[in-house]
This record gives sequence, C-alpha cells and structure tokens, in this order.
Amino acid sequence: MQTIKDIKEMQAHCLAARSAGQTIAFVPTMGYLHEGHMSLLHEGRKRGDLLVLSIFVNPTQFGQGEDLERYPRDFNRDETMARECDVDLIFYPDTASIYPDGYATYVTVEGPLTNTLEGACRPTHFRGVTTVVTKLLTIVMPHVALFGRKDFQQLAVIRRMAADLNLPVEILGMPIIRESDGLAMSSRNVYLSASERQQALSLVVSLNTAASVVKAGERAASVVLAKTVNRLESEPDLEVDYVKICNAETLEEVNEIDQESVMLLAVKVGKTRLIDNGLLMEQT
Amino acid sequence: MQTIKDIKEMQAHCLAARSAGQTIAFVPTMGYLHEGHMSLLHEGRKRGDLLVLSIFVNPTQFGQGEDLERYPRDFNRDETMARECDVDLIFYPDTASIYPDGYATYVTVEGPLTNTLEGACRPTHFRGVTTVVTKLLTIVMPHVALFGRKDFQQLAVIRRMAADLNLPVEILGMPIIRESDGLAMSSRNVYLSASERQQALSLVVSLNTAASVVKAGERAASVVLAKTVNRLESEPDLEVDYVKICNAETLEEVNEIDQESVMLLAVKVGKTRLIDNGLLMEQT
Repeated sequence: MQTIKDIKEMQAHCLAARSAGQTIAFVPTMGYLHEGHMSLLHEGRKRGDLLVLSIFVNPTQFGQGEDLERYPRDFNRDETMARECDVDLIFYPDTASIYPDGYATYVTVEGPLTNTLEGACRPTHFRGVTTVVTKLLTIVMPHVALFGRKDFQQLAVIRRMAADLNLPVEILGMPIIRESDGLAMSSRNVYLSASERQQALSLVVSLNTAASVVKAGERAASVVLAKTVNRLESEPDLEVDYVKICNAETLEEVNEIDQESVMLLAVKVGKTRLIDNGLLMEQT
Repeated sequence: MQTIKDIKEMQAHCLAARSAGQTIAFVPTMGYLHEGHMSLLHEGRKRGDLLVLSIFVNPTQFGQGEDLERYPRDFNRDETMARECDVDLIFYPDTASIYPDGYATYVTVEGPLTNTLEGACRPTHFRGVTTVVTKLLTIVMPHVALFGRKDFQQLAVIRRMAADLNLPVEILGMPIIRESDGLAMSSRNVYLSASERQQALSLVVSLNTAASVVKAGERAASVVLAKTVNRLESEPDLEVDYVKICNAETLEEVNEIDQESVMLLAVKVGKTRLIDNGLLMEQT
C-alpha cells in the first residue's frame, strides 16, 4: 500500500494504470474511517484492479460555525484500516494543494436537488462537495466511485453532477452500515456523550416506526411525519432540523407514500448534527 | 475524417486513443470556421496524433437578447475546412445531448477574472463557457486544447478553471489572426454591413495607435485610454462597451503601463458586438 500526497503524482499514477488496462475503484472520504467506509472499500476491492482511497477533510463543504476544526482526524488509524481492506493507494493531499492561492472554480448542482433538506440547512455545503468530488474524480479517473447511502442527498447530487459533466465513472451507492444498536455509522458519532448517544437512537427508532406504520397500511405522509416528529421531540436534548418524506430520485416531497418514498431526518443532539434515512416500503 | 455526434461514442473513442498511447489535440469551436480556427487546427495537427475539432453553438454562454438564434452555422462548409486542416474527428453533438432534461450542473470561475470586462457586460457568459468547456474536456480528454487570444479573457478564465479542476490538459493560447485590413477574424464579422465593416477597423487602428503612443514613451493608462475612446467614438455607428488596460494574467486594471499590460476593447458596431485586444509593449 502506497500513500501519495502530490496531486500530479497521483494523477500520473492513475492515468498510467488506466492506460495499462487496469480498472480503478475509488472511495473518497474525509478520513476517521469506520465500518461504513470499510464496506465501501470491500466492495471497491471486488470491483477494481486498483483500489484507491482518498482522505481529505474538505473545508469548502463546511459552513461558518460548523465543525471543520474539530472534525476527527487520525491518519495512522485510517492507514491501518485501509491496509486491512487491501487498499492499493491512499491519496492524502493537503488543503493548500487542493485549494491553492487564487483558487476560484466551483462546481454547483442547481435547483431542488441542492436547495432542499441539507441544502436548506447548509447553503454552501453541496457546492463544496461537488467541487471537491469533481476534482478528486479528475485526479483519480476511476471507473467506479463508491458512496454510502447515509448521505442520501449527497449521493443523488453526485449522480446528477457526474452525469451532467459527462464524467466517465459509475457512481455506486452502498447500504447504510449501523452500530449493533442501530445508530448509523458516522465519524461524528465520537462527539456524542453517553446520554446523547442514547437519545441519538431515536433516529433509527423513528425510521423503523415509520416503516411499520406504512406496513400497517398508512400512506399519508403527513400522518407518518407527525408521529416521527413527536417521537423525536420527546428526547430532551434533541432538536429537529428536518424530517421529510421525498421521492428517492428527485428528492421532491410527496404527500402519498409509495415504493419510491424515502424518509430523511436531520437532528441536532446536543451540539452534534446527525442525519439518517430509510426507504419506507420494502423494495420489490 | 469521421464525424461523431454521440457523447458516449466520442468519449469511448478518445479514451481508447489515449490508452493506446496517442496524444490528443483538441480545438473546441462554435463552428462557422475562419482562418483563426484554422490556425488553431494547424498547430493542433503538429501537436496531436489525433486532432479533434468540436462544433457546438453553446446556448448557455449567450445571454437573453444576444445572438444565439442568428449565430451563423454551416456544417458542410466547416467540414470542408476541417478536412483541409487534416482533422481526424469532428465532435458535433446536439444541444439536447449536451444539456438533457433535468440538467443542473454548472462550473463557475468566481471573482475578478469573470466579473470584469466581458463578465460585467455579459453576466452569465463565462459560466456557460466554463461549463461547456469542462464537459468537452471530460468527453474528449485531450492532452492539449487550443484557444485563440482574440477571446483573451476567456483564455485566462479557462486556464484558471483547468488548473483549479486539475484537468490533465495543457491550455494553449494562439495569436489573433486578422483580415488583410487588420480586423480580427470572428464568425460574427458576417453580420457587418459595408459601412459597419469600415467602422469596425477602428478597433485595430486604436490598438495600433495606443501601442505607438506607448512606444513614444507614454506610460499613463488614463492618457492612452482617453485617446483610444476618443478615436472609437468618432465613428457614427460605434458604441463603446469598454476599453481597459489590464494586467495580462490577473486582468486587473493598471494605472501604469508595463510589459504585462494588455488593452482590451469591446464595442457595438450597429447591432454587432466585437472585441479585440493587444499587448501594449513589444514582448522581450
């Protein structure tokens, strides 16, 4: 396993691999890896001759007052986990090389995919995500890039961006990986105190309850949403950012729940912001 | 010479050529080719094993009320000229494939490179240019892309964009090609009546006069600009959009003229908008 920090060296390496007929699988991350990332790496290992992991805490996707400075970082730990997943190449650039002096170019996906849900709460977030992902895809030139479905909207936005910019890459969304008690894996879970950790379980409990209510026959989004919000707001330190039921592809809100409906939640537990989501009907 | 309209076919062709070790030279155009384009193609022929020309009148770089509908088009004529220049591949996509239903992604270069000069007169112009050029570079994957210096600001913006997005391509700027009387070649010159054509010569006359004044020792931008504006405004059907003296790299206005100073002009002659530019001191 090799770690490369230099952009041009990384790009030359990947272009050469591609020219030599190798298939490149790519997992972009902000590091502080957990089992969610590992599931992406395991799938990537199956799909690529060359498995590339990037670790870069991207400042442009954090808003003012968000947790850029305290975002957890531990390269040595990440390196060990990457080795366990049989990663070939870690791309580990520094901020000054990704955004050098005079940097001025941004990639944006406009409209409902980015101005609702996370985009409404975090207005510059997706601009940062699509900009850095475009750059990473240009540098690594993968055949397939893997993303977790925990960031459901991010996945939809990146799919749109990659298709719109004609990037020659397959964007693959992978299932959410959860702790044994159901909490969706996230690098931010380390922020939670024991009491907050307990309250955070109400996200997955709400999603499961909503799915049960739908299974029992309820189809009105407003009814399911009201039950969910009530459940969440019963926690003392939990503040709801949003709870919505949307079409899984367009992310437009729906009134009547169907096979394509996904419930998306964002809450603050204490100072920690958490998101989760789930389809409301079993997929046929 | 082959013409390809389909994006995926074009991309597969170019990726295969690249993997086979071929060097790709690329000249993106809006068609209605003239000797300026041909000079780019001749240089591209020297630099690429595969010489690719794209012809696409890009709607997103035209503002409301601009000349998108009447922009001159003649594919058969372009094809003949491309053959003369020994082009290997013409990429000739239609608008619906470049901007399909639901298209939502834009590439922007922010700040002084795009909010001055052309960007001030045409606020959405460069967003359209950088978006389509990113897409074309992603599809064609060239080693070198050639642009004319007549669109001086466009060249600076594209250089910035390509560097910022880590596109693995050399952006090459080529000298302005002029008619025998000095008018800079432009597809839009066909709009000009005989009288307008005559008045349009005041652009190159102004540039030459400015260079002479500088050669005679004048270094104050304000003095040179005043003379130039007076000269231009003496034409009855000519309206000045801007005349500025800027640093050739940053495009920031300068007070004192030096080796790096470029004069940039935009005027309307009748209904036709023309631009031109020139360095004010001979380059050492």
